[in-house]
Amino acid sequence: VPVTLSIDAMSGDHGLPSTVPAALSCLKENPDLQLVLVGDQAQIEAELKRHKARPDTRCRVRHASEVVGMDELPSKALRGKKDSSMRIAIDLLKSGEVQAMVSAGNTGALMATAKFVLKTLPGIDRPAIVSAIPSVNGHVHMLDLGANAECSAEQLFQFAVMGSALITAMRGEANPKVALLNIGSEEIKGNDTIKAAAALLQASSLNYIGFVEGDGIFLSDVDLVVCDGFVGNVALKTGEGVAKMIRQFLKEEFTASLMHKLAAVAAMPALKALGKRIDPRHHNGATLIGLNGTVVKSHGSADDIGFANAIRVGVHEVQQNLPQRISALLGEALKPRSPSTARAV
Amino acid sequence: VPVTLSIDAMSGDHGLPSTVPAALSCLKENPDLQLVLVGDQAQIEAELKRHKARPDTRCRVRHASEVVGMDELPSKALRGKKDSSMRIAIDLLKSGEVQAMVSAGNTGALMATAKFVLKTLPGIDRPAIVSAIPSVNGHVHMLDLGANAECSAEQLFQFAVMGSALITAMRGEANPKVALLNIGSEEIKGNDTIKAAAALLQASSLNYIGFVEGDGIFLSDVDLVVCDGFVGNVALKTGEGVAKMIRQFLKEEFTASLMHKLAAVAAMPALKALGKRIDPRHHNGATLIGLNGTVVKSHGSADDIGFANAIRVGVHEVQQNLPQRISALLGEALKPRSPSTARAV
Repeated sequence: VPVTLSIDAMSGDHGLPSTVPAALSCLKENPDLQLVLVGDQAQIEAELKRHKARPDTRCRVRHASEVVGMDELPSKALRGKKDSSMRIAIDLLKSGEVQAMVSAGNTGALMATAKFVLKTLPGIDRPAIVSAIPSVNGHVHMLDLGANAECSAEQLFQFAVMGSALITAMRGEANPKVALLNIGSEEIKGNDTIKAAAALLQASSLNYIGFVEGDGIFLSDVDLVVCDGFVGNVALKTGEGVAKMIRQFLKEEFTASLMHKLAAVAAMPALKALGKRIDPRHHNGATLIGLNGTVVKSHGSADDIGFANAIRVGVHEVQQNLPQRISALLGEALKPRSPSTARAV
Repeated sequence: VPVTLSIDAMSGDHGLPSTVPAALSCLKENPDLQLVLVGDQAQIEAELKRHKARPDTRCRVRHASEVVGMDELPSKALRGKKDSSMRIAIDLLKSGEVQAMVSAGNTGALMATAKFVLKTLPGIDRPAIVSAIPSVNGHVHMLDLGANAECSAEQLFQFAVMGSALITAMRGEANPKVALLNIGSEEIKGNDTIKAAAALLQASSLNYIGFVEGDGIFLSDVDLVVCDGFVGNVALKTGEGVAKMIRQFLKEEFTASLMHKLAAVAAMPALKALGKRIDPRHHNGATLIGLNGTVVKSHGSADDIGFANAIRVGVHEVQQNLPQRISALLGEALKPRSPSTARAV
């Protein structure tokens, strides 16, 4: 089955030198894939040429005269840049010309534009950013990773419902284990919002297993961790920072002496295998969940390997028929809990 | 110069089997140290005996008939357990019998009791938890790590002032670089509280360098990271969780095949050196800052090696004359910025 995605080719810290080779390598590995590269036509064609490629039916170019800056105000980008590569790529999704859209651009602008053009699913106030991150059990999904700095208990509950539906749709996991991210040192735990969200989850049909603390994201047996976008973004980036720091420490220790350098040669295959497991590029590609359409956000700093992974996430989600399946599951979970039964005489 | 500390010997997940050997090993390595072990006298003496030791002038025992549970409500512990090991150890600090107090107990109860007995420093609303954590530059201090789940901009500012004073007092660093923990993906960045705190810091005499994101805690050139206790606790524990996960991945990779196992033997010295650098036990011991007295909080799960490190943190702070020096520096920093000059005609 052919899958068509639009690519915000101008996006990210690196722009075309990341997005174009990523697009080409995905087209090469997946013969069912078609891409529409959106951005400055001349620049895209030049970059394609640099990689000995040119536009064709599987790799089309759609010109856009503007680019949303990485630090631009989302509201300004939304109102003022209607011919940006980001906006056009989302418009292509809205019109049905493509089935998913991938961008490494400004998160706030992407969220605002996608929400404006595509609208949220019924029952959902705000979209959230969700991604799979490595854990001792393989992977854990977490949301919100930075779309909503402040969230109500109801929003956290909606995030849990959406995340749960995503895992069910993508992995066939019928009752994913859902936890709320919390701290263990307050009177008695957490703030009022978390407590209210816990009450909503407890009363729901979701498989809610309680609180996890920061270390529990990576170490405990849970499928979905729910938190607000501020905490989630800090946790995600903290994890990346620690992984990078440890990689640097490893390098320092394995070059500390001649003996250690010799040992490093022997240890290289194991160290490389480790490096691959914790390399954020191989986990790049977060989903903007809660929208009428599949939008994938790549890390702004992603290189071509990282951006290619984000494209693969989009392809996978199209193949699994998101967000239609999420929408169906949402209808179930957001239904008030059989009030007819409760009131029956 | 002799230094005397009280030890909440019943505290933590392990209690006496952690605290007593930790106390003995610190007494052995530091001839100037004296300790008062607070808790059930018979049980403490039995544990001392198990380590071929007994009470003497350098290692006194002070009986306390109660223990604060790790999950007990702070308010209940404060009102209902006036003969707990935690309370008596803090009372000894208040009366001047000891110069610092160390506990691995319930954070909320420790904070509430210490605040009630010792009171906060002038100009400080709420104490915070601060600790040094490993970074690529060696160490970075961070607060609040879990005492205050919700904070106002003014409190974040006070945390910055206290943390800055701590670093100056402990390290002789005259103008420590202060950053606010934030996310990079909102309209334009962070929430209202963070923005207001940033404005306060910008207008202050502190060496405020701006925002860092989660990865910046570990990777950037900053001395102090300020955040609320919810976010700080999540970041701290996330970091610990990732470090533990990577340690497990390393173990798995180095036992994945016979070749990898052989490589592990050669790599052992470097791996051990790495393990020591990221071992949270060697960074255990956080300070409850903002109180009239030095209270050190050990991780609840600390073993004897970890708890001994918390005792060393307390000793070091007594030797550096905290909190008197913080108090003096606070007076400076919390003074309104020369309004007389501004208003002079």
